[in-house]
Amino acid sequence: MAKLIIANSRTEEMVGDLSLLTPDERVAGGWGAQRLFWFASDGDVLVLPWVAQDRYVDYVLGLTGTDRASLTLVVPPTGYLGEELLTPDRLADEGFRARLREALAGKGIDRIVTAYDDAYVVDLAKHLGIEHALPGFAFSEQGGDALVNSKAAFRAVAAGVGVAIAPGTIAGRPELAESTIGAILGRGDSVIVKKEFAGGGFGNEILATDATVRPAGARNVVLLADADAIKAYVAEKWSWLTGGRDDRLVIEQYFTGSATVYAEFVVADDASHLLGTGEILMEPVAIGEIVPPRSITPEQHVELVDAGRRLCDAFRGLGYRGNISADAIRTGDGRIVFSETNGRLTGSTHLHAVLRDRMLRPDFRGERVMVERAVWSVPSFEGAVDALVAAGLAFDPETGTGVVLTGNYVPVNGKVMYCVVGKDFESAEAVAASLAGLAVAR
Amino acid sequence: MAKLIIANSRTEEMVGDLSLLTPDERVAGGWGAQRLFWFASDGDVLVLPWVAQDRYVDYVLGLTGTDRASLTLVVPPTGYLGEELLTPDRLADEGFRARLREALAGKGIDRIVTAYDDAYVVDLAKHLGIEHALPGFAFSEQGGDALVNSKAAFRAVAAGVGVAIAPGTIAGRPELAESTIGAILGRGDSVIVKKEFAGGGFGNEILATDATVRPAGARNVVLLADADAIKAYVAEKWSWLTGGRDDRLVIEQYFTGSATVYAEFVVADDASHLLGTGEILMEPVAIGEIVPPRSITPEQHVELVDAGRRLCDAFRGLGYRGNISADAIRTGDGRIVFSETNGRLTGSTHLHAVLRDRMLRPDFRGERVMVERAVWSVPSFEGAVDALVAAGLAFDPETGTGVVLTGNYVPVNGKVMYCVVGKDFESAEAVAASLAGLAVAR
Repeated sequence: MAKLIIANSRTEEMVGDLSLLTPDERVAGGWGAQRLFWFASDGDVLVLPWVAQDRYVDYVLGLTGTDRASLTLVVPPTGYLGEELLTPDRLADEGFRARLREALAGKGIDRIVTAYDDAYVVDLAKHLGIEHALPGFAFSEQGGDALVNSKAAFRAVAAGVGVAIAPGTIAGRPELAESTIGAILGRGDSVIVKKEFAGGGFGNEILATDATVRPAGARNVVLLADADAIKAYVAEKWSWLTGGRDDRLVIEQYFTGSATVYAEFVVADDASHLLGTGEILMEPVAIGEIVPPRSITPEQHVELVDAGRRLCDAFRGLGYRGNISADAIRTGDGRIVFSETNGRLTGSTHLHAVLRDRMLRPDFRGERVMVERAVWSVPSFEGAVDALVAAGLAFDPETGTGVVLTGNYVPVNGKVMYCVVGKDFESAEAVAASLAGLAVAR
Repeated sequence: MAKLIIANSRTEEMVGDLSLLTPDERVAGGWGAQRLFWFASDGDVLVLPWVAQDRYVDYVLGLTGTDRASLTLVVPPTGYLGEELLTPDRLADEGFRARLREALAGKGIDRIVTAYDDAYVVDLAKHLGIEHALPGFAFSEQGGDALVNSKAAFRAVAAGVGVAIAPGTIAGRPELAESTIGAILGRGDSVIVKKEFAGGGFGNEILATDATVRPAGARNVVLLADADAIKAYVAEKWSWLTGGRDDRLVIEQYFTGSATVYAEFVVADDASHLLGTGEILMEPVAIGEIVPPRSITPEQHVELVDAGRRLCDAFRGLGYRGNISADAIRTGDGRIVFSETNGRLTGSTHLHAVLRDRMLRPDFRGERVMVERAVWSVPSFEGAVDALVAAGLAFDPETGTGVVLTGNYVPVNGKVMYCVVGKDFESAEAVAASLAGLAVAR
C-alpha cells in the first residue's frame, strides 16, 4: 500500500484568488510544495508543481530513510500561473491525469495526503477512482473543509461548544464593522480584524488608538484616532477585508502581550487524536515555532488540549476527517482564548509527524524540544547542509539532537528554515544562535 | 415565568435583503408575524410589528385558552420599510427598548421565542440582559444560525454524517455552475438550482430540457436546450442566484415525481427530540401540508426520522439549540433524499406544538390527521370564522376534530390558511372540499 501525495501548497480557500499572489509569493508556495517530500515513504506517488534539485530531495529523503528510487514523481504541464503552484488547471490536465493513472496502476493507494482537500483534489480523486483514500471524502466533496477553515464559522462553533474566544463579532456590513471597531477602541482596547479565509496572519490587521501597540499575528498596526478615521478605514479596506467577494469579516479584541499557541489533532472516525502542541513565534507574523510551548503553564496546556479537542470533536461530528490545528492565544492575564481552526496540513505537522515520530527514536520522543525558524540567511541550501555537517551540528539520529533544514527559501529571500532539535531550550537556542556565524559556501 | 415572543417573521438570513421584498410580500410577512400569537401563553410578552384586529387575536387565543388580558403587546415605532415587518431598526429603537424593558420588569422571562435567532434578536436579548433565555445564545451570538440554514453547509454536513443528498455540487463560480448543469442535463435528468439562503422554494428554480417537467419546490421550470442556453442562463441569473453578494449556489439533480417531507426536531442540551413529521403540498411551491406524511412507507418514515436526527445531532454538537426541520424528498424510486435543514420556527411548528400538544386532548394525539392549506378564498377572516361555526365545522375540543384557521392572508391574496383536524384523511379532505361551498360574509 502507498500514499498519493498532492503538493497543493496554496489553494483558493487558504489564500484567496491565486492570481493575486505576487511572483515571490508563488515561488515561496512552490518551495512550500517541496516540503511535502517530508511526508513521503517508500513506494509513494507525489504530484508536484516541479521537482527541487537533487540535493534538496536527497537531503529530505535521507533524513526520513526513504528510498528515492521507490518514489514516483509526477509533474503536470505548466498552468495559467506558471509552474510554481499546482493550480486547478494543472490538476485537471488530461495528459497529466493519464500519466498519474498509469503511475498508480497496481499501487493500491490507501491514503491521499494533500495540503488542503479542496474541490480540485476531490475531483482528481474521483477521476482516479480512489476517493476512499481521502479521509472525510464525502464531507470534502461538498465543500465542507471551508467550514473548518472559516474564521467566522469558527467563532460560532467555539462559542457553541463553550470554548473561549475573544470579544468581537462577525460583520457582514460596513456599518456593523464601524460600530464594533468603535466600541472596542472606545473602551481603550485594540482590535484585530481577520479576513474569513487566510493563513499565517496575512489576512489580519491590528487597529489601535495607541502608537505603542506592537503587532503579533498581523503585519502591521493601523492607528485610528476617531470615528471618522474608523469610517474611512472600513470604506477603504472593505473589499480587501471581505476577500473581494463579500466574505464575512471577523472583528475581535486584540490582546497585547499575548503568546500564540496551538494544539494539532488528527481527526479520525473514533476520536480526535492529539498530534502535538507548540508555540508560534510572531515577528510580527509567524516566522517559526517552538515545541513544546514555553509560555503557558501545565494547567494552561491542559486547557489548550481539552478545549482544542472539543472544537475538533464538533467538526468530527460534521464528518470532517484529517488534521485540525486549534489555535489560541495566552493573554497577558493568563487566559487561553482560541482564535481559529485550520483543517489542513499545517506548517507544524511535519515537526510532530516526521521529525518526532519518524526521525526520533521512540525513547527520545517527549525528551526533546524543537526550535524552528525561517531566518537563517545563507548563499545556498547545499552550502547550509555542508556547513552543518562540517560544524558537527547536523541532526544525528544517534543522539536525537542537531539541526534539520526543514524548508528552503533561498530562492525567495535568501533564507533556509531550520529546526534545532535539542535536549532543552537553552542548548537548542545556543545552537540556533551559532548558525549565523557559520561559514556557508555558495 | 413567562416567554418573550419576538415576531421577526422575515429576516435577512431567511429571505435576503428585506428592502427587495414587494409590498405584498411585506404584508404577507406582517400576517406571518401575527401567527406568533399561536405560541402565546398567559403572562407572555409579545413584540409585534403591528397588532391584528381583535377578532383575529381573540380567535387564536380562544383556541389556545390564553387570557388576552394577561399578555403584554409591544409594537416599536414604524421602521424604514414601514410597519409590516420587525426590521432591525425597529428592534434597535431606544424608546421601544425602554418600553419593553418596563414590560418585562418582574416577569422572570425564561424563554425567548423568535421566528429566527439573528444578530438583531441577539443584540436585543443582550440589551435586556435576558440572553440566558435564548436557547443556544452563544452559538447564535456568533452568527451560527446561518450555518444551520445554509443550503451549502447542509450538503457538507449531510454528506459528512452519511445522510443521502441529491447528486450535485456547490458552485462558487459561473464556470462550475455551467459545467454542473450541463452534466446533469446531459444525462437526461433535470436540475434544481437553490439560493444558499431562501425559504419556501422561492429561492429555487428547475432547469430542464424537457417541457413536460412539472415544478415542485420552485416556482417555475426554465427550459435550457443546449450549452449556449445554459451559459446565457447562468450569466443572466448569476447575481440573483448568489443573493447579490456571492453566496454559494447549490446545484442538484431534480427528481420528478417526488414527494416532499420533513422531520422537525427540538434540539436541546440532552438530545434532538422529534417534534413531528409531515408532508409538504407543493403547487408548485409550498401551499400547505399534511400530517402525518401520506406518501412514504413506515420504513421510509423511520429513515426520515433517523437520518433527520443525525443531521440535528451534528448541529447540536456545534452548539445550536432550538427547532430544526430536516427536509427531504421521497424520490420516484422510493429513496429518501434530504434537501435542506431550517434552524428556526417553521411553517409547521404550530401544527405539532400548538394544534396537537395544546389543543388536542392527550388521548386524541396520534389519533388525528391534519390537512393545512392556504387556499380558501373568503371575503373576510371574521366571515370565515362565523361561516365555520354556522356550518358546524369549527374545531371542537370535545371531538378533537374540525377546522382551525391557522393564518389570515385575506389582506394579501383574499385567502385564509385552514387546517382540518380529522380522524382520517378521507373525512378531513371531505371537510376541506366543502369549504369552497360555504357562504361567507364580508
